[in-house]
Amino acid sequence: MSDELKIKDWLYEHQSKGTRFLQRLVQENSTRGQESGAQAIIIEKCRKLGLNLDIWEIGDEDLINHSAYCSDRKDYSGNPNVVAVLKGKGEGKSLILNGHIDVVPEGDENDWLHDPFSGHIENGKLFGRGTTDMKGGTVALLLAIEAIVSSGIKLKGDVIFQSVIEEESGGAGTLAAVLRGYKADGAIIPEPTNMKIFPKQQGSMWFRITVKGRSAHGGTRYEGVNAIEKGIMIIRQLQELESVRNARIDDPLYDNIPIPVPLNIGKIQSGQWPSSVPDIAVIEGRIGVAPHEQMKDVEKELEDCVKEVCKLDEWLSNHHPTIEWFGGRWQPGNLDLDHPLIASVSSSFEKVKNEKAVIEASPWGTDGGILSNVGNTPAVIIGPGVTASAHDVNEYIHLNDVFDTAEIIALTIMNWCEVYKE
Amino acid sequence: MSDELKIKDWLYEHQSKGTRFLQRLVQENSTRGQESGAQAIIIEKCRKLGLNLDIWEIGDEDLINHSAYCSDRKDYSGNPNVVAVLKGKGEGKSLILNGHIDVVPEGDENDWLHDPFSGHIENGKLFGRGTTDMKGGTVALLLAIEAIVSSGIKLKGDVIFQSVIEEESGGAGTLAAVLRGYKADGAIIPEPTNMKIFPKQQGSMWFRITVKGRSAHGGTRYEGVNAIEKGIMIIRQLQELESVRNARIDDPLYDNIPIPVPLNIGKIQSGQWPSSVPDIAVIEGRIGVAPHEQMKDVEKELEDCVKEVCKLDEWLSNHHPTIEWFGGRWQPGNLDLDHPLIASVSSSFEKVKNEKAVIEASPWGTDGGILSNVGNTPAVIIGPGVTASAHDVNEYIHLNDVFDTAEIIALTIMNWCEVYKE
Repeated sequence: MSDELKIKDWLYEHQSKGTRFLQRLVQENSTRGQESGAQAIIIEKCRKLGLNLDIWEIGDEDLINHSAYCSDRKDYSGNPNVVAVLKGKGEGKSLILNGHIDVVPEGDENDWLHDPFSGHIENGKLFGRGTTDMKGGTVALLLAIEAIVSSGIKLKGDVIFQSVIEEESGGAGTLAAVLRGYKADGAIIPEPTNMKIFPKQQGSMWFRITVKGRSAHGGTRYEGVNAIEKGIMIIRQLQELESVRNARIDDPLYDNIPIPVPLNIGKIQSGQWPSSVPDIAVIEGRIGVAPHEQMKDVEKELEDCVKEVCKLDEWLSNHHPTIEWFGGRWQPGNLDLDHPLIASVSSSFEKVKNEKAVIEASPWGTDGGILSNVGNTPAVIIGPGVTASAHDVNEYIHLNDVFDTAEIIALTIMNWCEVYKE
Repeated sequence: MSDELKIKDWLYEHQSKGTRFLQRLVQENSTRGQESGAQAIIIEKCRKLGLNLDIWEIGDEDLINHSAYCSDRKDYSGNPNVVAVLKGKGEGKSLILNGHIDVVPEGDENDWLHDPFSGHIENGKLFGRGTTDMKGGTVALLLAIEAIVSSGIKLKGDVIFQSVIEEESGGAGTLAAVLRGYKADGAIIPEPTNMKIFPKQQGSMWFRITVKGRSAHGGTRYEGVNAIEKGIMIIRQLQELESVRNARIDDPLYDNIPIPVPLNIGKIQSGQWPSSVPDIAVIEGRIGVAPHEQMKDVEKELEDCVKEVCKLDEWLSNHHPTIEWFGGRWQPGNLDLDHPLIASVSSSFEKVKNEKAVIEASPWGTDGGILSNVGNTPAVIIGPGVTASAHDVNEYIHLNDVFDTAEIIALTIMNWCEVYKE
């Protein structure tokens, strides 16, 4: 039996076990600051697979002082990064398999049909926060490794599995792994791409705009200046900026994406009292960075946009809003389409799915930017998750796609790292 | 020496003491839920004046079940209402003197030049949260009573001094006093009117509009529906509603008021994460009710306005926002201009200030609506506070106005309740 057939058979035989593993991982809520429970499940699995485990709490000075570090988290204790290496026999190319364990908050729980952390299964879909983004992808990575190990297949190159924290908040976990020395000849990140291949990834940054008003009694609101009204003026100009920035993008990889680099208004907080004029409004959001763009240039463009609004308004021109670049910050990724890793992944995809792989640009940043820009490790993104379902209520994943992705990744590992024959 | 001259002299002699009393009262932060410290100062003063004290915790069933009761406060324990009666000798008309002890939150403390609870004095002004709204007015009431008592003047009618809680949140304190039996032939409330007389008061109600969106990853924001954007559509329509409602008002008492019945957007909260599309936005505000309007009609007008926005937007027409009428709810006041209480106050004003009193409609609701609509006690509003300074940062009051108002109120008491001569 060929190695490839062994993998297919093993995965087919282990669908129930693999599904239960994903379910258990989803049931372990791993929103920011409480990643330890889910990491414990990962660690146990890697230990059983006989991988060389490296478990550590990130946050040392090298990380905090690095120019690509961007986080407002004060305490990483108790919630480790995990790296587990399947050592090769030597000479083959090495491959990083990177997944993040953190998930975004579940939002309004009442909007969910089932408990967001139930891991409910229906019609071949597994539901719950993190199924698509990206515990399904992480399980695909571990199934690929397990299929290879269990099938008795030996490799030349090293496979470096990573379960990192903090991806949703700017990538401090992957940056810490890079700084700890984990680099490779290539990397795959199974973020939710609908099984498309994303060689280019949109980067992004978080911003916070603080708008001042002047408080007054609501019954004489004309004596005050409403910070919400002024904030709305800025939001409208930011919507305009999004149109202008996207009109410039002509990369054909973005042809099927309605807004290549979206600007999202994610949060607004203003006012303490219904009958007072609010004196401060805080707007938070995320601006996309195109693969070819520099973060600094995009920062300046947004700052100039806010300055433009201020010019048109007497109050704002005398009370400039402040702009902070805080929290999340994802480098864009920009891998050449003719890089051999793309060929390897595409070929595996075609073998498993019997169709041509779709190659697109990703609508969001991933830790691939850090792997390539800081770790000098070329990264490609392909994963089983449903792009539209990430961060949404009733987040789900198609279980079939998890197993197909596991097979694609196993074949890519064998091709990239090469099989060692005694 | 005439009684009126005795009052003038006494007040002149006691300016320093009166100022220190106001300062001490301002230093006692009495935002909602922590009114007890300031009430203790009031109680001590009333005790020294020999008034009949009635101190009780509000919140009994009669109050909670009353149709005019509107509050989301669960616990009134430890923060009493205070009523203190100066019994007359009989036959004269009775007069309620009503002030509220609660103050609104101080807002962003960094905007204040001095600690909001410092009671800082500069150039004849006393600064701090609650100086204008309305501890300065309450002190004027107590100075008026003290001047009368200390000057040995006896009255025929009762003077019923009230220091109530909850005015800023809908008037449960005054309603509780009415239900406890405190009614009178007239009432004065020294809310901050710039010493103008307000026979008509704008009522108001709080509303909360909850707008639903659909969450999604910010990088594919086009897959979601941004609750902030939908909320902004509603805010714009509410601004339109304010224009329409105010264009209808032709009462000459409102001639000098830029917006007779303002609609204030006081608060917005939406989103949990900068890079997620927010799925819910909660907008809170206050709508003014004109003296001649019914609360129910105004509710309906706002609800219809929100329905209109929904008709124009496919998402909103399928996901109607919810509207709640919560918290604050102030009945409008509408005293006839030829009521004898207005004549009495106007005459006192002219004696003290040597100029004609200005009669206007108030830009905000007061507890006067409850006194007149529920307690059948005609109420007029006149107080020393600076209207524009209420609820604002660096709130202040002119100390001279506090003493002038005390004199006006003392003369009104003597005229309305009548002096008893042995």
